[in-house]
Amino acid sequence: MSRFFSDKFTGLEAYVPGEQPKDKKYIKLNTNESPFPPAPLVISALNSNEVSKLNLYSDPTASSLVEAIAESYGVNKENVAVGNGSDEILAFIFNAFCDREKGMVFPDITYGFYPVFAAMFGVKYSTIPLDSEFKINIDDYKSVTDNVIIANPNAQTGIYLERDEIERLIAQNPNRLVIIDEAYIDFGAKSAVSLIGKYDNLIVVQTFSKSRNLAGARVGFAIANSSLISDLGTMKYSFNPYNLNRLSIIAATEAMKEREYFKSCTEQIIKNREYTYHALRSMGFYVTNSKANFLLAASDRISGRELYLRLKEKGILVRYLGDERIKNYIRITIGSMEQMEALISAIKEILR
Amino acid sequence: MSRFFSDKFTGLEAYVPGEQPKDKKYIKLNTNESPFPPAPLVISALNSNEVSKLNLYSDPTASSLVEAIAESYGVNKENVAVGNGSDEILAFIFNAFCDREKGMVFPDITYGFYPVFAAMFGVKYSTIPLDSEFKINIDDYKSVTDNVIIANPNAQTGIYLERDEIERLIAQNPNRLVIIDEAYIDFGAKSAVSLIGKYDNLIVVQTFSKSRNLAGARVGFAIANSSLISDLGTMKYSFNPYNLNRLSIIAATEAMKEREYFKSCTEQIIKNREYTYHALRSMGFYVTNSKANFLLAASDRISGRELYLRLKEKGILVRYLGDERIKNYIRITIGSMEQMEALISAIKEILR
Repeated sequence: MSRFFSDKFTGLEAYVPGEQPKDKKYIKLNTNESPFPPAPLVISALNSNEVSKLNLYSDPTASSLVEAIAESYGVNKENVAVGNGSDEILAFIFNAFCDREKGMVFPDITYGFYPVFAAMFGVKYSTIPLDSEFKINIDDYKSVTDNVIIANPNAQTGIYLERDEIERLIAQNPNRLVIIDEAYIDFGAKSAVSLIGKYDNLIVVQTFSKSRNLAGARVGFAIANSSLISDLGTMKYSFNPYNLNRLSIIAATEAMKEREYFKSCTEQIIKNREYTYHALRSMGFYVTNSKANFLLAASDRISGRELYLRLKEKGILVRYLGDERIKNYIRITIGSMEQMEALISAIKEILR
Repeated sequence: MSRFFSDKFTGLEAYVPGEQPKDKKYIKLNTNESPFPPAPLVISALNSNEVSKLNLYSDPTASSLVEAIAESYGVNKENVAVGNGSDEILAFIFNAFCDREKGMVFPDITYGFYPVFAAMFGVKYSTIPLDSEFKINIDDYKSVTDNVIIANPNAQTGIYLERDEIERLIAQNPNRLVIIDEAYIDFGAKSAVSLIGKYDNLIVVQTFSKSRNLAGARVGFAIANSSLISDLGTMKYSFNPYNLNRLSIIAATEAMKEREYFKSCTEQIIKNREYTYHALRSMGFYVTNSKANFLLAASDRISGRELYLRLKEKGILVRYLGDERIKNYIRITIGSMEQMEALISAIKEILR
């Protein structure tokens, strides 16, 4: 820390992304990426003609992308904001709508970035414990007057709340904002986007990083009432007007249009998840009933940390999160069938 | 504005980027882009093999790019931070090192984003007027105890401070931070980077958007003492760890290596600037002595706004800034010789 660092950041602990070791080639099942390449249209659209225009600024409104998203979700362009990954969108949300008075509330086990965003922007926050089965109980949020953010399916656990439960959460209190972080929604769960016309206190956040095979392009988006989207625009134009580069705008626009490829990739992930779920269960693992592109799993025969380390030795990276309540667990990204088979046989060897 | 927008942003006025009208094809001389395509190595490096890896996250440390910058400037990797355009780096700087007590001071005429960053992050700020010839007088900053940010060459005017003047500014008070925003440094001016070993209160900010022909890739960087760079890392990892996408990291890394192309492009801009400067002067314009890739020019025969509008009618976009002190001026980006000749003959027609 330099002697110039502002006192307001005393104690700020930054987020730690999943490791990316470069010592050898790993089967990477630790950051919830897609194992499949971007859609064919994405690859053909990012040609040398487009690259040769990189001397020119990108469209700050990213209108082609906003249009493609609006069309795909049956909303208006005024209901869509795009960002440099959903992390940027989430950061804007914490900053725009929360402060020391109006805080943010979220489950104790969820995306680890939420408390970091709160610290970064001087936002008061508190957590509500998941129940003993790692489920969110909507009734626990009844008396909350601060804003609420829920990852659905939830980060780390993959457990999903049905849309009528989400609607109940939104309707509990129209004077607080409810943010539904749907990073993992496309693997068998149902989006809350259809509720934005009915509730002006709802923001749905999604990403191109998981189901749209574009983690490396860094594109996320929010869908909400137009006045909320306008506030997010004020954030963007007060921080980084050209927040999306030219090539990522093109990549995400094309990815949004290729619905068949999207469908086949997400269906394959669901299939591979079911395979992995059952294979782990048959080895005696406790595995969450995940609707995401990952599983949270634990075994009585080996600690989470030990299993993570032994798998890493064997060239397979999974995520060991270490939070107290899930310290016996590892989080496994669902990859290709080949990768999942390699994982299962590695675990079998380790537990032999 | 929604009913949920935090009170802390009351009165926040976002930055307005240069217009990008889509009604017809313009000669774009309004956002200080390079008229030349990215370096050949950039174009060949961004091939379909790289695009097909976009399903994987980018390297959050952007180590190849950090290394290329460090090598090019003869500093260590620990002295370099990279961001999603220099706007993101500047935002991190305003947030990290300033607050309501320790403010930021800058000239009255400079990059219009500085007061917006201040408002965005609740930072106290004040301005010091340029002298009557639009020059920065270092002595005016002697008693400033807040941090200081100077664009060098200055935004809007292009006027440049010699490095010994910059050093005098830094040495005036070792307990305040001095940020030198060198977005326009490569068109005939001298960087302050060589001073970072001597002063721990200096941050130099640069961009790939102008001299490196990559405005559309959104890459900027800071060079400073390693403890300041570490604080910028804390900002990034508390906001958006994967702030650079895969393709922009590759593009900027290759662009930094191609020194011959960089040299030929910047030399051509300097040549075109001198041509335009003399052509405007011979038509009776007042033109700033710019060392940047733009000129600020005014004529007694036509107002800045009128000239901007008449040029737009003729398919040429320049920037009319409208600030009180420069309201008679237009800012002209230096493009290719063909573009500058088109500009000069359009102005001749308008003033005929």
